[in-house]
Amino acid sequence: MLVPIKAQQQSSSSVKPKKVSVLGSTGSIGTSTLEVLRMEPKSFQVESLVAGDNLELLVNQIAEFNPQAVAIRDPDRVGELTELLKSRNLPLPQIGAGAVEIEALAGGDASHIVVAAMVGMVGLRGVLAALHAGKRVALANKESLVAGGKLVEGALKEGKGELIPVDSEHSAIFQVLQGERMVNLSGITLTASGGPFLSRSRQQLKSIRPEDAVKHPRWRMGAKISVDSATMFNKGLELIEAHWLFSLGSDAIEVVIHPQSIVHSLIKLTDGSQFAQLSLPDMKGPIAYALTYPDSRLSAIMPPMDLCALGSLTFIPLDPLRFPAIAMARSALTSGGAAPAVLNLANELAVSYFFQGSLTFDQIDAFVAAALEEFGTLNYASIEELEQIEAQLRRELQPGFIAKD
Amino acid sequence: MLVPIKAQQQSSSSVKPKKVSVLGSTGSIGTSTLEVLRMEPKSFQVESLVAGDNLELLVNQIAEFNPQAVAIRDPDRVGELTELLKSRNLPLPQIGAGAVEIEALAGGDASHIVVAAMVGMVGLRGVLAALHAGKRVALANKESLVAGGKLVEGALKEGKGELIPVDSEHSAIFQVLQGERMVNLSGITLTASGGPFLSRSRQQLKSIRPEDAVKHPRWRMGAKISVDSATMFNKGLELIEAHWLFSLGSDAIEVVIHPQSIVHSLIKLTDGSQFAQLSLPDMKGPIAYALTYPDSRLSAIMPPMDLCALGSLTFIPLDPLRFPAIAMARSALTSGGAAPAVLNLANELAVSYFFQGSLTFDQIDAFVAAALEEFGTLNYASIEELEQIEAQLRRELQPGFIAKD
Repeated sequence: MLVPIKAQQQSSSSVKPKKVSVLGSTGSIGTSTLEVLRMEPKSFQVESLVAGDNLELLVNQIAEFNPQAVAIRDPDRVGELTELLKSRNLPLPQIGAGAVEIEALAGGDASHIVVAAMVGMVGLRGVLAALHAGKRVALANKESLVAGGKLVEGALKEGKGELIPVDSEHSAIFQVLQGERMVNLSGITLTASGGPFLSRSRQQLKSIRPEDAVKHPRWRMGAKISVDSATMFNKGLELIEAHWLFSLGSDAIEVVIHPQSIVHSLIKLTDGSQFAQLSLPDMKGPIAYALTYPDSRLSAIMPPMDLCALGSLTFIPLDPLRFPAIAMARSALTSGGAAPAVLNLANELAVSYFFQGSLTFDQIDAFVAAALEEFGTLNYASIEELEQIEAQLRRELQPGFIAKD
Repeated sequence: MLVPIKAQQQSSSSVKPKKVSVLGSTGSIGTSTLEVLRMEPKSFQVESLVAGDNLELLVNQIAEFNPQAVAIRDPDRVGELTELLKSRNLPLPQIGAGAVEIEALAGGDASHIVVAAMVGMVGLRGVLAALHAGKRVALANKESLVAGGKLVEGALKEGKGELIPVDSEHSAIFQVLQGERMVNLSGITLTASGGPFLSRSRQQLKSIRPEDAVKHPRWRMGAKISVDSATMFNKGLELIEAHWLFSLGSDAIEVVIHPQSIVHSLIKLTDGSQFAQLSLPDMKGPIAYALTYPDSRLSAIMPPMDLCALGSLTFIPLDPLRFPAIAMARSALTSGGAAPAVLNLANELAVSYFFQGSLTFDQIDAFVAAALEEFGTLNYASIEELEQIEAQLRRELQPGFIAKD
């Protein structure tokens, strides 16, 4: 090689397998994580698994990966889990349940890496505990950073923990930023598929049913994130997440619709140059990168991409009237304090009401806007205060809340 | 910032202006280089200029940049240059002329960086002299690397010189490789605009006139490189250049047609991910990068790029029958020895015969193919042997040479 690129040393820690804890192991990111770990048994070992309600899948995962510890969300189902394991003659791991024990496990087990892949704000305590314990957090739970960015920042400042993004957009930015001076970074472009309803007018959104909303055109993913992708709240949350991860203001973060989901995001450099990371849509790529960074990449994690077979990559401006979620996210980011947490929780609740049938699809935006209007000036200084705000919002933000407007 | 990206230190050498020598200052890359240097007088100082026949422009450049030394290709025109300078009351720099004095200047002046932007094989001795003298060579003269790759490799191994690519494709690859482990690199994709005649059949190529061939759809560039872009020999030379720069075999280098010339090239990583560098087509970007690397980028060197305004980026497979230059380049690369030099010089001569009217456009391919057939097994071990081969080829590869087939 004639150009001056230094061959980076492999870190010595890669000799022993790294122990991994997967918070949210039965979800979409969790199962993709286990697919990656399955491919690389010499490099990784599953230390613990945390799951929600899908005990059957959890038992299969326990049978395959033999973790030291597991925890589930619902304390009332520990007996059921124990019976399932016994009925299959599986050795019993240590079993915990409930928020407090999940948090204790994230901070207290022997894992080097915690994959934070639980959906919603519930993951924040686990993320903070893992960072306080000096672990790497592979962050797929964007809600915890959106709601508690200030707390995550504090945990990173005080300890030896580190945060690696797993969202495909933020992973793309993190990857292409590696060789670049931060002083050269003038902004980023987050790409958005536009979701399944890109071509529908706002008028037509009213009739969308939950079963339509979970059919994403490009990515296989969970139900809540599929709806967030259709409303573009997912991109709004990512905008706030990018602010925290890369120290960028709202003005430096552009959102562009890219229906093919091949360019996962771009960085803009001061000289006018831009860097993009591209791949077929497959979360195993960003997950594996977050697990291995800064060591060598794993091989053939994603199928090879043929640009000519794709033919064309298109980029479409985002219509701010069609997708008010982006402007709401920018406004919440600028307001600061608990405003992003309000946006996030109001959206989480609105989506659950949509699935319950108590809100129509097009009311999700209005619900979040009303919540921001009412509670957007709240602030917090600790996890406890943030959780008090959350509890208050859960009480007040009932489906009927929107009727007040 | 929450992600672990180290803030790289600015090298202390950036405090004093770096002295720059521009070989080929009146050509397209040369004038773009001076545009960059004009923008950053605190960072750079023109130490010397080397030009071909455009003495009028050279005199204007001398008047503006006040170099310590200049050299021109033709020793018979030194008197003319001196008169032009005197008539404008300009202080006389040291003036040299001819290949030997150009080489002496490239190795012997006080410059830190030599921008090698002369067209054709003539630049090789200057490149080697600058590398032997421990300078940085910003390489725009791909022909010198194609013809004398082995010699450039030798000069880099023995000394403190360094080579930074200026071709937009190789600069793109070099830029996005910065943060990556070389062990992760599985290949690259060179993008090609396809040139002005992409939609014409091989039958229709016969009628192309020199004045058609220099109209490139995307890039403003010199006459020879415009023809090379239309025949795709430019991309063939870049393929061989990439082999030397990045230690890649022919199989690891893909060529894809990308008519918009926005994605300047891509790297393929072992996990299935790809990185691309994008910008509006403007050679000031890669030139400035080669001048400043690894310090901060210069600001606003290129106009900002709006993906949505571009709308669509397309990628088309290269038809190997339509563009035999690529297969010839791969074959020359695999043959090794002097084969790439033969390909390069045969193409250089064929293009000059095309401009003289002694070859038609469609005969350029056949001319090069015949030359490779006849001389492709030659080898060389020194610059002198390579120059003997060059002299022999210049004698034998007359326009009539092709008639033998």
